Order: sequence, then C-alpha cells, then structure tokens
Amino acid sequence: MTPPLITLLTDFGTRDAYAGILRGVILQICPAARIVDLTHSVPPQDVRSGALLLHSAVDYFPPGSIHVAVVDPGVGSERAAVLVQTPGATFVGPDNGLLEYAAARRGIERIIGLTRAEYHLPTVSRTFHGRDVFAPVAAHLANGVAPDSFGAARAALVPLGLPAPRADGTSIAGEVVYVDGYGNLVTNIATADLKSFSTSDLSVSIGACASVPLVSTYADVEPDAVLALIGSWGHLEIAVRGGNAAARLAAQVGCPVRVTRRPRA
Amino acid sequence: MTPPLITLLTDFGTRDAYAGILRGVILQICPAARIVDLTHSVPPQDVRSGALLLHSAVDYFPPGSIHVAVVDPGVGSERAAVLVQTPGATFVGPDNGLLEYAAARRGIERIIGLTRAEYHLPTVSRTFHGRDVFAPVAAHLANGVAPDSFGAARAALVPLGLPAPRADGTSIAGEVVYVDGYGNLVTNIATADLKSFSTSDLSVSIGACASVPLVSTYADVEPDAVLALIGSWGHLEIAVRGGNAAARLAAQVGCPVRVTRRPRA
Amino acid sequence: MTPPLITLLTDFGTRDAYAGILRGVILQICPAARIVDLTHSVPPQDVRSGALLLHSAVDYFPPGSIHVAVVDPGVGSERAAVLVQTPGATFVGPDNGLLEYAAARRGIERIIGLTRAEYHLPTVSRTFHGRDVFAPVAAHLANGVAPDSFGAARAALVPLGLPAPRADGTSIAGEVVYVDGYGNLVTNIATADLKSFSTSDLSVSIGACASVPLVSTYADVEPDAVLALIGSWGHLEIAVRGGNAAARLAAQVGCPVRVTRRPRA
Repeated sequence: MTPPLITLLTDFGTRDAYAGILRGVILQICPAARIVDLTHSVPPQDVRSGALLLHSAVDYFPPGSIHVAVVDPGVGSERAAVLVQTPGATFVGPDNGLLEYAAARRGIERIIGLTRAEYHLPTVSRTFHGRDVFAPVAAHLANGVAPDSFGAARAALVPLGLPAPRADGTSIAGEVVYVDGYGNLVTNIATADLKSFSTSDLSVSIGACASVPLVSTYADVEPDAVLALIGSWGHLEIAVRGGNAAARLAAQVGCPVRVTRRPRA
Repeated sequence: MTPPLITLLTDFGTRDAYAGILRGVILQICPAARIVDLTHSVPPQDVRSGALLLHSAVDYFPPGSIHVAVVDPGVGSERAAVLVQTPGATFVGPDNGLLEYAAARRGIERIIGLTRAEYHLPTVSRTFHGRDVFAPVAAHLANGVAPDSFGAARAALVPLGLPAPRADGTSIAGEVVYVDGYGNLVTNIATADLKSFSTSDLSVSIGACASVPLVSTYADVEPDAVLALIGSWGHLEIAVRGGNAAARLAAQVGCPVRVTRRPRA
Repeated sequence: MTPPLITLLTDFGTRDAYAGILRGVILQICPAARIVDLTHSVPPQDVRSGALLLHSAVDYFPPGSIHVAVVDPGVGSERAAVLVQTPGATFVGPDNGLLEYAAARRGIERIIGLTRAEYHLPTVSRTFHGRDVFAPVAAHLANGVAPDSFGAARAALVPLGLPAPRADGTSIAGEVVYVDGYGNLVTNIATADLKSFSTSDLSVSIGACASVPLVSTYADVEPDAVLALIGSWGHLEIAVRGGNAAARLAAQVGCPVRVTRRPRA
C-alpha cells in the first residue's frame, strides 16, 4: 500500500528550522508519510497569495492527498483551526480564507473544527499551531483516523474574498492577484472567463501598456516584448519574454488589467 | 521496520547543489534513509545561529534520529570531526560548538572522533567535509554501524559559549541571540530563567522600548504593537504583531534585553 | 527493491509552488519514487549555470539515477525535449545545452526525443514543460518504461559551448564560469588541465590580484586573504578565507583567470 502523501505550504521561510520541524512532528506520528513542500516562502502573513498558490498546485497531486497550509496571522486568537474534505483532497489549516479558495472550487464535503486535544501535541503554544496542531492532525489523518474524530462539524469557511473579474459584451476588467518568482503577473481572469470571446482578436491592457498581444507562448513575441497568455495556472498572465514583467511595468498585486475585443480593421 | 531518519542543517544555501549532493551521498550508502532538511540557510559560517536552530528542532524528531550539522569555517584545519550520542539523538558534524549546545542540554553519552577513513568517501577534499565525511558517516550510522567503529572516544566538545543571562532578585539581564525570518528577536532568557518571577507583573525593555508588555500571544496586543512572549523555542522573544521587530527596533544579535518586575501601583 | 531516485534541478525558485508541483506529478505516476532537489535556484534562464551545477552533482548519486533539469527559455518554441542515457545516469530536459555538459563528460549512449504524448500529461501547456512533459517522462522511466518508448532516437545534443581554457607551456588562461552562494569563483580550469604543471610553484592572477597563492585548503592562508584552490567541483576556484571573493574582487562570470609558473628565486 502506498503511504499517504502530505503537502506543506507555509510562510515560515527556509531560513529557520520551522518547516523542518513540521516534518519531524509528522514523521513521529506517521513514520511512513511522504511529505512534499509546495512552498515555505509565501510572503509573511499574505493569506491571499497562499490561497492562490495552494489552488494552483492541488490538481497535480494524487487523490487522497492531505494539504497542510499555514499562513496564520490570527494564531492565538479566536480564528478556528479546521480540516476540510473535498472529493479528491483534504485540507488542514487555519480558517481564514487560506483553504477556502481551493476547497470551494473542488466541492466542500465536510468541515471539521480541530478541537480534540488528543490529536494535538501535548503542549500547544499560542504562536505555532503549524507545529502543535496542524502537522499532528495531518499525520493522524494519514494514519487513518476518521475526520470527525478531530472535532465537531462546522457549517462554513471564512471566504477568501478574491475580487471577481467583471465582464460585459466587449471587455473583461480584472486585476493582478499574484506576482510569481519570474515577475509574471497572474490575474483573476481565468480561461473560463474568456470562453465567450474569440481569443484571436483580443488585446490586453495594463497600466501604460494599452495593447499587449494575447498569444499562446513566449516564443510568439520578440525577446523582451510584453505579452499576455493563459499561464500554467489556467489564468491570464502578463509576462515579458526572457524578462520580468513586474519590474518592467512597475506592476504589483491590485493593478487593473483589461481584456478588450480588438477593433476590426 | 521504519527506516532511519537523518536531518540536515547547513550554511550551504539552496542556490547551489551542495545540499542535494549530501542527499545523494547518503542515499548511495543507505538507500532507505528518510532525510529532512532543517535548514540550509544558516548565515554563512555563523556557528552560533546554527547551534541554536539545531537545538530548537531536535525535540520534534523521533528518538533515534541522526542530526547532521555543517557550519564549518574551520574545514581543512585541525578542528575535529565528531559524532555525539545523547539519549534520544545522535549528532554528526564539526567540533566547533555547533553540536555542543543541543547535545549538552540532552545529556552527552559518548563523543567519537571521525577518523576511520573507510567510512568516508574514497577521496576526502579539504573544503567539503559535509559531503566527504559527515554525510557518509551519518548514512553508515543509519545502516547500523556501531558508533565506536568510526574512531576513538573523545573527552569533551568545544563549547558554544553562548552568554548566559544574569539574574538578581528583581530583574534578568540577557541579550538577543537569534533573529528569525519574521524578524522576531529570540533572547537567551529561557522559560526556566523566569520561573522565580510571577509573569503577571513583569515588563521587558530593549533599546529605546522601556516597557514592552510580556503577553501570551500576538493577539493580546494591538496590531503593530511591540510585545514580548515566550516563543516557540521556549525562550523570551520580542516581536511586533503583524510586523518585523528587528526592523522596527533596529535590533540585532547582541542587543541587551532586560526583564524587570513592574513597580506595583 | 530500492525505489528509483529522481533528482530535480530548475530555475523555478522556491517562492512559488512550481517545484512542489513537479513532485506531485511524479508521485502520481510513480508513487514509490525517491525525489531529491539539487536546486531550484538556478538564476532565471541561465542555462550555463544550470549545466555546471548538474555536472557538479551527478557523480554523488547512485548509478541508475534519473536527473530532471529544467532551465528552459525556449519552452513553447521548436527546441526539442530529450532523454539522454549515459552509463550511470539518465538525463531528462530541454535540448539547449543544459544536459549536454554533464552527459558528454559521462559518455552519451542514446538520445531520445520526447514526442510520444501518452507519456506526457493529458494537456500540455506551452509554458511549463517541466510539469507537463519532463516530470511525467521521468516518472514513467522510473516505472520501468523503456527509453525508446518515449520517441525516436536523435543524433546529437545542442552543445553548451562552455569556453575551454587555453594552455601553453608556462601558463593557462581560463575564466570564471560560475559564482557559488559563498561568492567562490569557480573557473573552467579543471584538475586535469593542471596536470602537466607542478602545483607547488604556480600562482594565479585574477583582475588586480596578480599573485594569488594556490593552496590546499582555506586554513593555509590568513583569515580574509584571497586564495586559489582546487574546489569541491574539481575545478580551480578563487576564494577568500572566511569571506566572499566575488564581492571582494568585484568579479563575476567571464572574468579572466590566469595560472602561471611562479618565477624561480
């Protein structure tokens, strides 16, 4: 039998030993667990970036994977700790929107509050629930403990509240929601939002760039040119071939992006 | 049988392939080893930070784990290479204080000098003992080779020499000994040092901040306020709720910190 | 039977979840795979640095290891995707020089173009072949799929084109080809190039430093002194004991380095 797979996504960084400690806690409870880091470099306390990164990764993991996510500015406060079941994946983390974006898009089957202390570490700090609550819960889950053993069912998750793009017949107005490590500008405009448009006659505007071509791949434009494409997340992205779009356009999260039908010649 | 667990803590960074190479060496000797990175981002040649990070992590790993630590400014010189046994963990690395802090706090049972070349790589460089000595020794140890096979017993380790806090009846004078990736200021004042004080009427001073409240968790103060708490290492830490205390207070390793009984009203 | 070992070397960085996604794809196809990160921090689109890092690591992995490397500025263009077999290792990645340097030095036995879509993900993006092509091919290979199942044989790889050092009877002229995370300057002058010289009477010059001593290890010079040695890659390196040579010498990739027989006294 293949041992269970647990992924980790946090804002702990990799300078300290915090991420390694999560692995120690998990392996002490479930020695056979396979553990994969999604990233530990979510910008500190940036729940939205964490939620989007989690969403971008989940579909590439085997059904039954357990995804632990910890970006937790409210640790020690009244925010709930939860486990969320969807058909193909279980999520474990704080109830602050971090899990909601990925979970809602896959169909939430059950939400459990993580209140049963016997599945936490013996001493639970008020600053590091990744180590003391979320990692041990994930490991017990991987060991086959039933989800409802961890606490009582809850009705709903705190929503992430990502702004939705606004479409009319001729254009879609969205915004940059994530800047990746290459400087690519990921927008909130998904493939589905573009369905009613023929992509062959669209152009994209961002900031001072009024007419960025929407192409299929980087090589469709000259080196150093600005382009738009459907990126690997399935979202519209603005990029620079061989360069960094965030730097070139001085763009950041929140910058408006508009997709328009190009006027016919 | 669960395969042995080996952790890695180094200052190799993650830009180069040095950390990956350690894993290759280990897996070539002990194919079943489970390997966990504590961190590879100890500041270059900063033995003290490495020692503290190692200490902060060890208790979260299963008994019998092997901890390889390599922050090794003296590589190629006369500094010894050692293996240190404690009741729950075995440490492998240079004898320069890096292992001593964690090992001494857990009870040193045996120190072995790593002089037997048959457990090193066939060619030992004079610049990369992590790869050529420490990784192979850890892997052979994981394979069940007895500790005293690796060389002769040694009497003592080079001490880390971390400054100890100084307490009198009304205050404790310590200092910042580590700044973590969030900018939290970890001091050398441990929970045990505060035992004779009632924490309800203490205040903390650092630099120009004369009266930092000692609280239980971040949420006990307003956003952006400076606070002191017992952090996840079990040491007094200075933090800023939702912010970076090192930047806010322009504080660094060595800054004095004082805990004082608050005057009664 | 020991499960297959797959290494990953990319320029994806560790800020996003791209590297974690590769692992998910591999584990979905080959659940027992052991996966090791060489690095994900190759400078963006820097094929040469990636090629050198890969070369530096391969010999430390067990025979039969599969090395996936993705630094892929030409993704989505006509550049080929390939699998390269050598006696001890198989390489998978884009045919842009990245694999050629390491593979040619180990003896290329077979090159296969990765054209058979049944071994790729069902949908192949035009921007992320690491996820959609290279990771799944490596995982199928780890599952025992025969190399020639992935596509047709190809005659040759695109060469990396690293400049070769030029030697005459009394000196060798080379250059810096990589700067590692410590600031050590790795040159293209290998141990073999120095064979006809007696190392005891050589000196090295770089930039304004006309007479850098060639020593065996850092401790052979005073703290803070510039030195040259045969580094852990088996190449001549310029370093500063306890410091950063790239910063000290304002040196970078391409800087000329010359090894000269020291005049006899």
